Amino acid sequence: MGESHLRKDPVTQRWVVISPGRAELPQAVAADQPRPLGAEACPFCPGHEAETGAEIHVQRDPDSAPNRPGWHVRVVADRHPIYHIEGGLERSAEGMYDAMNAIGAHEILVESPEHTANWASLDAGQIERVLRACRERMLDLRNDQRFRHVIWVKNHGMPGSVFHHAHSHILASPIVPWAIEEELKGFSSHLRWKERCVLCDILKQEVTDGRRLVVREGGVVGFAPFAPRFAYETWIVPVEHSHDFTGTRPALLRDLARVLQGLIRRTQRFLGDPPFSLVLHASPVGEYTREEYHWHLEFVPRPPQLAGLEWGTGIHINPVPPELAAERLRGAV
Amino acid sequence: MGESHLRKDPVTQRWVVISPGRAELPQAVAADQPRPLGAEACPFCPGHEAETGAEIHVQRDPDSAPNRPGWHVRVVADRHPIYHIEGGLERSAEGMYDAMNAIGAHEILVESPEHTANWASLDAGQIERVLRACRERMLDLRNDQRFRHVIWVKNHGMPGSVFHHAHSHILASPIVPWAIEEELKGFSSHLRWKERCVLCDILKQEVTDGRRLVVREGGVVGFAPFAPRFAYETWIVPVEHSHDFTGTRPALLRDLARVLQGLIRRTQRFLGDPPFSLVLHASPVGEYTREEYHWHLEFVPRPPQLAGLEWGTGIHINPVPPELAAERLRGAV
Repeated sequence: MGESHLRKDPVTQRWVVISPGRAELPQAVAADQPRPLGAEACPFCPGHEAETGAEIHVQRDPDSAPNRPGWHVRVVADRHPIYHIEGGLERSAEGMYDAMNAIGAHEILVESPEHTANWASLDAGQIERVLRACRERMLDLRNDQRFRHVIWVKNHGMPGSVFHHAHSHILASPIVPWAIEEELKGFSSHLRWKERCVLCDILKQEVTDGRRLVVREGGVVGFAPFAPRFAYETWIVPVEHSHDFTGTRPALLRDLARVLQGLIRRTQRFLGDPPFSLVLHASPVGEYTREEYHWHLEFVPRPPQLAGLEWGTGIHINPVPPELAAERLRGAV
Repeated sequence: MGESHLRKDPVTQRWVVISPGRAELPQAVAADQPRPLGAEACPFCPGHEAETGAEIHVQRDPDSAPNRPGWHVRVVADRHPIYHIEGGLERSAEGMYDAMNAIGAHEILVESPEHTANWASLDAGQIERVLRACRERMLDLRNDQRFRHVIWVKNHGMPGSVFHHAHSHILASPIVPWAIEEELKGFSSHLRWKERCVLCDILKQEVTDGRRLVVREGGVVGFAPFAPRFAYETWIVPVEHSHDFTGTRPALLRDLARVLQGLIRRTQRFLGDPPFSLVLHASPVGEYTREEYHWHLEFVPRPPQLAGLEWGTGIHINPVPPELAAERLRGAV
């Protein structure tokens, strides 16, 4: 019971992470008040490098020393990881149930040396550094035969969060996350019926239609999807089909950084620095790679507390039609 | 854009409800402070019957008049419905996208005449009346050829809620909710492989094992599932296989009321009157009825605000192993 591990629900086949240690972490308890750490106690601030693990990836000034100040972005191991990097995958049964140990990687991407940096004020070059760090880590992690998927998750301003210093999570897991599996079913079935990528088709319609477009820079488009679960939900998609985020060329990474900057600035202007989540959806890796997948990011400002209808039935009630959301965000400049 | 309607995501095939009017309702905006109505302004209190629609179902004292005080439980139409009862189903296309008007039923079950009644203090007889009202409404609604599914959802103490008077929602929808579809896939596949019901199998293992059992009364068992998404998530299941909640015999309804009372009292004792959601999962109706389904209730206290990892990937991190959750709830008497 002590170690973090994965269990599969025998009805829906969904894996969950049972992570007993996290009960003691304040952010795991929604009812707790946030107790954000100031710069003096922040392990992510320059000068506090010894309080985290060693740098797994870093972009730093050429004359600076490893694990010392002088860096621009920095990736370290999470101190309270959801997945553990050491050991072999061990699958087990408990009667009719399936479980496995939570082998994987859980890394923290520190996105700026400045304690109070906010994505809405970061320059596009810094966002590009973050995306590059993310790509580098994915390139490395996908070589590990134990992992089937690598994901990047950025949460900002969520209630209960202790670390206000801009950071995000890179997670490599021994399973394909369930939402990615669901999307893959859609990609495969569209491919089978139409011999085209469903997200390429969506993009074509959105660009022509225009009502749900929020921001476009070169090869990257941000738009409100036709059937968004959440108010102001936005998808950020490369126009050219690609299943693999790690293959993104520098010019496209720059476009992506500009789209993200434009989107987050607009959101901040219209909604007033709301909490937000940003998640990179990419193909599974290694022998599970699926070229029909089209990588993209999903952005949700102010993710709501879900009540029975949403978590119990999967029916989301969205009070803001995406055409209206896009119009408002487009106008917020 | 004005009317509530349903839209389907072309990748995942999930339907969402776009409900523009709800933007103006305080409960739709998570950031708003709750402004609960006192008894004097509460439309669900006796003496205020004229402020709701007419009774669709009622259990009242024999000598009392319809739509007047003297009732024990009362079902009325929701004033701000997610689904609209009038009109025919109209499906439409918008390029590659699918939509339909939000035809359905949305009713409010007022669970007690007392403004401050709390499920933890309701007697089992009153809970039984609530369940009976729910069964009666489902029996009626499933005759409507436009509906494919009927669900009962109870939320208690959710932040932002205006109506503190104990009530729940009955929703009939022209689609099978996505979470029920997912479960059905599991029921079908287990049936195909093992020629047994997966939830019957689970129950057998849980009753024998005992570590995850929380409360049992006659023919109904409450237990923490092996792979719970949420801390203290509990499933309440009839031991005898049945796909159809409306067929529940009075004795079993009594057992169910006692299990719910026992569970909610324990939760209150251990977690201190937390918000909770309770959702009835039953087979689709009419020609979509599936006898392999096993109806049950899912209970989640303190449903958390979901961050990127959960909504973005479907991976839930649960800090409390179900064996520990069950032990704590069992002990809270």
